[in-house]
Amino acid sequence: MSVLVVGSIALDTVKTPLHEHADLLGGSASYAAVAASFFSPVKLVGVVGTDFPAEHLAFLQGRNIDLTGLQHAEGKTFRWSGEYMLDMNTRETRSVDLNVFEHFTPTLPASFAATPFVLLANIAPSLQGHVLDQMSRAQFVIADTMDLWINIARPDLEALLKRVDMLILNDGEARQLTGEHNLISAGHHIRAMGPRYVALKKGEHGCLLFGPDGEFFSCAAFPLENLHDPTGAGDTFAGGLAGYLAAHTTGPITFAQLKHAVVNGSVLASFNVEAFSLERLRTLQKEDIQHRYEAFRLLSQFELSR
Amino acid sequence: MSVLVVGSIALDTVKTPLHEHADLLGGSASYAAVAASFFSPVKLVGVVGTDFPAEHLAFLQGRNIDLTGLQHAEGKTFRWSGEYMLDMNTRETRSVDLNVFEHFTPTLPASFAATPFVLLANIAPSLQGHVLDQMSRAQFVIADTMDLWINIARPDLEALLKRVDMLILNDGEARQLTGEHNLISAGHHIRAMGPRYVALKKGEHGCLLFGPDGEFFSCAAFPLENLHDPTGAGDTFAGGLAGYLAAHTTGPITFAQLKHAVVNGSVLASFNVEAFSLERLRTLQKEDIQHRYEAFRLLSQFELSR
Repeated sequence: MSVLVVGSIALDTVKTPLHEHADLLGGSASYAAVAASFFSPVKLVGVVGTDFPAEHLAFLQGRNIDLTGLQHAEGKTFRWSGEYMLDMNTRETRSVDLNVFEHFTPTLPASFAATPFVLLANIAPSLQGHVLDQMSRAQFVIADTMDLWINIARPDLEALLKRVDMLILNDGEARQLTGEHNLISAGHHIRAMGPRYVALKKGEHGCLLFGPDGEFFSCAAFPLENLHDPTGAGDTFAGGLAGYLAAHTTGPITFAQLKHAVVNGSVLASFNVEAFSLERLRTLQKEDIQHRYEAFRLLSQFELSR
Repeated sequence: MSVLVVGSIALDTVKTPLHEHADLLGGSASYAAVAASFFSPVKLVGVVGTDFPAEHLAFLQGRNIDLTGLQHAEGKTFRWSGEYMLDMNTRETRSVDLNVFEHFTPTLPASFAATPFVLLANIAPSLQGHVLDQMSRAQFVIADTMDLWINIARPDLEALLKRVDMLILNDGEARQLTGEHNLISAGHHIRAMGPRYVALKKGEHGCLLFGPDGEFFSCAAFPLENLHDPTGAGDTFAGGLAGYLAAHTTGPITFAQLKHAVVNGSVLASFNVEAFSLERLRTLQKEDIQHRYEAFRLLSQFELSR
């Protein structure tokens, strides 16, 4: 089955302690759509300006991503610039130019309205809700969010949470949204706000998954020593997760399937941070994913007790 | 086989946001010895003062802990007092009275010198080294440490690291010891300083285990919402790990055995924080440990990829 991905498309300038690159393909929807495309067909909804390079469009099309819902607006593409500190964990935004993204309204082509899997990548929760208004038969809706929306659009976010099956957010955002320091309590608290499933990302410490019947899964992080660019890791995780689910779901979604989806999302994200922008995903092969999935399994498994 | 545990024995006063308890049984060796005793016979080396309650001695003896090496000195027992903040993670030491512990020199009874497993619980590295000077046939030596010794006794600690098989420390200590922010790099760095194995504890995020041939294991943390007292969690982990190894080792130690040992240490620690002092360990049963071991397995396992 296919997955609808809605979010931002950007041209990023990223500085790390060792390198600086300008005008890289970025944005939540770019990472998420390409990650999902490793598993299933993708329908993309977003907006670009007249300066958006044709090579990026060709790359997305070459990944089996349906661009019927991509809006081409007069003006410049959304631009973001950020800098990572020495620990590669702390990030400072240097500039944000919304450009054509400022007045973006996600409008779905008629052919997209019945897409069974939906990933609302990180954009304003009111726009995420607007996407759902246009959907007719969504089977499983996943939303990503960020600290900004918890700060400035909490009522919109709370309304959205009642309409989604799964929320993805990181540890800091979970604490901010719930006021709970304990991450287990925060996960339960967010589930009570609406979504049946919550994926709570902890960066280098992996990810926690909470389910409706007390189900709980702790996914390890792949041991990485050389992060080249953490930008888009969360979007790639969300896209890999959604794409895997869309590809492997036949009946009702089970917790076991979601565990596999979380691991596959983690695998994709662990590759993505190995190079700038989406560079690593350009050369990534299906068998690379399978090998690292098995490595994830080995690094966190142990046998029955004696 | 039995395990030798050397460390501090204390009377603790602990304050949390909800409770305060005085004169609790504490100290690194108390927690570690009792945790190890769930799996194997324990020989304890430490010092107490004339004020040390007889009931605590009876409790340790009742746990199959050999107290031949326990020194009874004139004066008061080591006392520590600390307070946990609202997040139950940040701790402030309110007072430390070393008392008889100030001039403690661990002297091994002759019958202890050939104990095959050794846990050097958290005391000064020079004292840990002095214990090894008295050992004749130690098969596997585990050392625990803390930020204090990295600060004030680094040369002693570095000398000790060349003599132990495994070092246990937490994430902050690993960063402090190596200057590496990345925990994977820190783990490899510490291995290069001497110990073949490194267990890097991450509190609520679990534990990483590094082995000599690139082996790596990520142990999840048990999902706990109500920590009553984190005091001694690290000592309990170390004791459970050492006791499990001593009980289950017949030939050379393998990485698979160490994984089991790390999980069992984590299980014991997860119980210990459920109540003040060693209270939870007093009532803990072997089958409780087995049930939680299985829960640990389930919360971190997933199947082969399709």
